[in-house]
This record gives sequence, C-alpha cells and structure tokens, in this order.
Amino acid sequence: MRIGLIGGTGDIGEGLALRWGYDTDHTILIGSRKKDKAKKVTEQYISKLSGTASDSFDLRAVTNRQAADLADIIILCLPPDYIISTVEQFTDVFDEDDIIVSPAVQMDRDEHGFHYDPLDDGSVAEAINQTLNDGMSVVGAFQNIAAGALADLDHDLSADIIVTGNDPEAKDQIMSLAEAISGVRALDGGPIETTQLVEGLTPLLINLAMYNDELHDLNTQFN
Amino acid sequence: MRIGLIGGTGDIGEGLALRWGYDTDHTILIGSRKKDKAKKVTEQYISKLSGTASDSFDLRAVTNRQAADLADIIILCLPPDYIISTVEQFTDVFDEDDIIVSPAVQMDRDEHGFHYDPLDDGSVAEAINQTLNDGMSVVGAFQNIAAGALADLDHDLSADIIVTGNDPEAKDQIMSLAEAISGVRALDGGPIETTQLVEGLTPLLINLAMYNDELHDLNTQFN
Repeated sequence: MRIGLIGGTGDIGEGLALRWGYDTDHTILIGSRKKDKAKKVTEQYISKLSGTASDSFDLRAVTNRQAADLADIIILCLPPDYIISTVEQFTDVFDEDDIIVSPAVQMDRDEHGFHYDPLDDGSVAEAINQTLNDGMSVVGAFQNIAAGALADLDHDLSADIIVTGNDPEAKDQIMSLAEAISGVRALDGGPIETTQLVEGLTPLLINLAMYNDELHDLNTQFN
Repeated sequence: MRIGLIGGTGDIGEGLALRWGYDTDHTILIGSRKKDKAKKVTEQYISKLSGTASDSFDLRAVTNRQAADLADIIILCLPPDYIISTVEQFTDVFDEDDIIVSPAVQMDRDEHGFHYDPLDDGSVAEAINQTLNDGMSVVGAFQNIAAGALADLDHDLSADIIVTGNDPEAKDQIMSLAEAISGVRALDGGPIETTQLVEGLTPLLINLAMYNDELHDLNTQFN
C-alpha cells in the first residue's frame, strides 16, 4: 500500500512516517511543496529509522502533488488554513478510490487557553468532504495524537485513535492502518458528521498539558 | 464539609452520593424537589452503602432548596434545561463562599449520533457564572464521568476528572473532592472560559460507546 503524506515534513508527518516506517512495510511518500525539502527531510527520517531494529521501511521523497497522485491513502498533514486550497489544487490527480485523511484541527488561542474554532462547514474533515467530488472517501483521524510522542520511537505509545468518515470501508482501512502502529487502538467515532467532537478534543489536550505541570505530549485512552 | 446534590436522585447524583459516601465522611445532602422522593431514594443509597465495608457515610434527604441553603459545595445534578432557572430560584439562599459545581452538558442527537450544543453563553458552567452574583465560585467538573460506572461500587474506576472554574481556590477544593473518590485523578482544565471543550467530550464518549461494541460506560484517562 502507498501512503502519501502531504506536508510530510511537518511534525505530525514526521510522527506518522517514522511509526509506519518502523511498524509496517508500506511505501511512505513524504511530500513537500519543494522536492529538495522533501529529500532532505526524508533522509533525516531514514537516518532515524536506520538506528532502530526495523529494516523493512520504505520512505521516498516526493512533491505534495506526486503524493496526491501516486498514493492510495493520502494524509493531509497541513495547517488547517491550507487544507481546502490544497485539496482544490489536487482534485485532478486524486483517484476515485483514494482515501483522503484529515488529522487537522482549527484552533485559536486567547488569554484563557486554546479553543476549538470550527470552520463554516463544521470540522475540517467535513469541509474537505464538501470540497471533493461525491463518492470520494474522506476520513478524520490522528487529530488527537501527540506529534512529539509519535515521533519519538523510544516512547511506548498507549493511545486511542478515533476515526470518523463518510464511508465504512474506508474507515475500516484507516482503523487498521492506525492499529498497525504499536500501542495504538483505533475506535470508531461514527460518521463524518460527528468529527467536530474529535477535533474539539485536541485543544482540550493542549490545555491539559499547559495547566498540569506533570503532563505534556498527552495522549488519550478510553476505558 | 457539607456537599449538596441538587437533583441528587438522578443518575449522576446517585454516582456521586455513593462514591463520596463510600470514600469520605462528608455529609451528603441528597436533594429533590419533593422531600418524599429524596427520602425514598436516600434510603436506597444508604441500603447500598450498608452492604459495603464503608461505615462512616452520612447521607441525608433534603429538598433541593435545603441542599442549596445548607451545603458548602453545591452540585447541580440536573438536566441542562433546568439548571439556569434553578440557579435563579436559589440565589437568595446561596452563601457568598459556596462553590457551585456544574456536571451538566447540553447535547442533541440526530441520525449521525450525539453532538455538543452549547448555550448562548457557551458552556453550562459559563451560563451559571453569568447568572450568579459576581464573586461566587463556579466550577465545571464531573461532566465526563460515566454515571453507570460511578454508581457501581464494584466497578474499579480509572478516570480523569477535568476541572475548570472562575476561582483557583475553589477549583483546588473540587479537585481534592474528586480525588477523594478512589481511582479518580483530577486535572486542571483551565479557567471557566475553556469549559466548552470539557463539555464537548461527553457526546464524543457517548458516540464511542454507541459505535464500538466492546465499549460502554466509557471513562477517559490521559497519559
């Protein structure tokens, strides 16, 4: 399977690339707007993985457009402000059976802490769904995972990943892909219309890290 | 310390009464609109506690108005629709140094699942704060705990309780009271203005219980 990380040089991109590199043999396409940047950062990821017990990783540097074109599963590892315009630019290269995944959350911050700031169309995932052609699979996932903990392969994860989406089969695929990461349990969050609740958990996690001295890089487990 | 449970005969009221009865020697005032109902239900709670190892519990049946008048800490265990009108009715009996605690969440449900439905003033806790006199302490807490698990004393809890509020000292008191329940860790969620995020976690928990067969009465732990 080919996983394309659009904006794969950012912090959540790094975490996903390293974990899937470490825990799976999927081909991971690390996308950036400029190929040079993708190459440089992919070399750093490969260097980190080379120091581990994993030897089956397959990471490749591409442009964001190539990631959108060549991958079966496309993760939009971008700040929310750039997501919709990026999706619009790449609609011509998405295939009908691609799965588009949004880990993004629109937040703002004031003197009280972080707040959730949904878009006019609701969650980022729903906004992507509005933007794409009918029939394409859109999934929300990985919004709540702490990128720092994800990118630190020495850190034993204990995290639930909540997955929502407009298509049950696509959701199942992303749940399996999430659970391929050691220490992750995937949970079905419901249809895409419930994604606001998942995105809203992210600013709460940041506030908890900010207001509780002993906590940082928070992950969540439900019991 | 006297803890007053307004609407103490409901499910979250039962859970808190039983846990604080079991784990502390505070006086718990079980409030209902009608004293008869409070008496009948308080007898049921006492009967449940009498079958346990705990012998120091002190539960008393009162009217909601007496709970508001006599308690130092007042928990509004009511459906959100009734909370503001109840607070308005009892402002004359609240003392200046009382702490008013909201475990309530305004939700709605459609074919996709549960959604968070904040009030015009934001969270329920903020709406209470707007309604009360300046200077009174308002705290949001216990919104996310599964009432069923709380009321089942045979169930070993492993739950984080997030506490927000307009006054740091009041918040500390409620955090201590939460941690008096065995298996609970209290976390500082920040000032009262961030309470929407905590309330929004509740419909997410209900959706997760609904969409994942193996899960029910979900509680949350952060790590």
